[in-house]
Amino acid sequence: MTNDADDFSLLLGADVPTREYKAGATIFREGEHGAEFYVIKTGRVQILSGNRVLETLGGSEIFGEMALIDSSPRSATVVAETDVVVAPITEKQYLFLVRHTPYFALKMMRVLAERLRAQNKAV
Amino acid sequence: MTNDADDFSLLLGADVPTREYKAGATIFREGEHGAEFYVIKTGRVQILSGNRVLETLGGSEIFGEMALIDSSPRSATVVAETDVVVAPITEKQYLFLVRHTPYFALKMMRVLAERLRAQNKAV
Repeated sequence: MTNDADDFSLLLGADVPTREYKAGATIFREGEHGAEFYVIKTGRVQILSGNRVLETLGGSEIFGEMALIDSSPRSATVVAETDVVVAPITEKQYLFLVRHTPYFALKMMRVLAERLRAQNKAV
Repeated sequence: MTNDADDFSLLLGADVPTREYKAGATIFREGEHGAEFYVIKTGRVQILSGNRVLETLGGSEIFGEMALIDSSPRSATVVAETDVVVAPITEKQYLFLVRHTPYFALKMMRVLAERLRAQNKAV
């Protein structure tokens, strides 16, 4: 599923702090407050709305960016499909990236546009 | 429908070139190549996928940004609901805005996130 627009491995340096979740663990739930987004280092996650799987994401892909972008509650629930290692990116880091690396903003917009196209097709 | 995230009036200077469409006119069709996005100066447009109305947009809102973001064909058809005046923004201008005005990139991401949330609810 990863293509160039989805590949956020540039945020995965060797010494970036990471967090681990076991297969089946809930990373966050729809409606919760969210203050960070995540880059997947290893493993896969499922993005769920109710009991519908919106998407499955893997290495170097991101999730949780919506709550940061518009300061709204989490728009979906995310569950670890396999054991996963993720790198959390804080709101402060996100704003720094947008302000100082236009390449990051363009990539982020491409991911959102891609997800919107996929959703339009699903409707 | 306009909220702060949707308000792109900062792109509507007094001497910005504009284009006019009569009510009922098709501005572009799903599947076409697109090299610009549009800020609505006056009037309203309908965003259509097949014969389903995805959204109705008015003054200071934008449409047509998807094709610029990911260089894909137009994802929807846009028809003038009333007589409309729009300001076309070229791909070159868009890239300049993203690179030099992080505020623009953040607004654009908020619009995309908002549309994605609306679509998720519609599914």
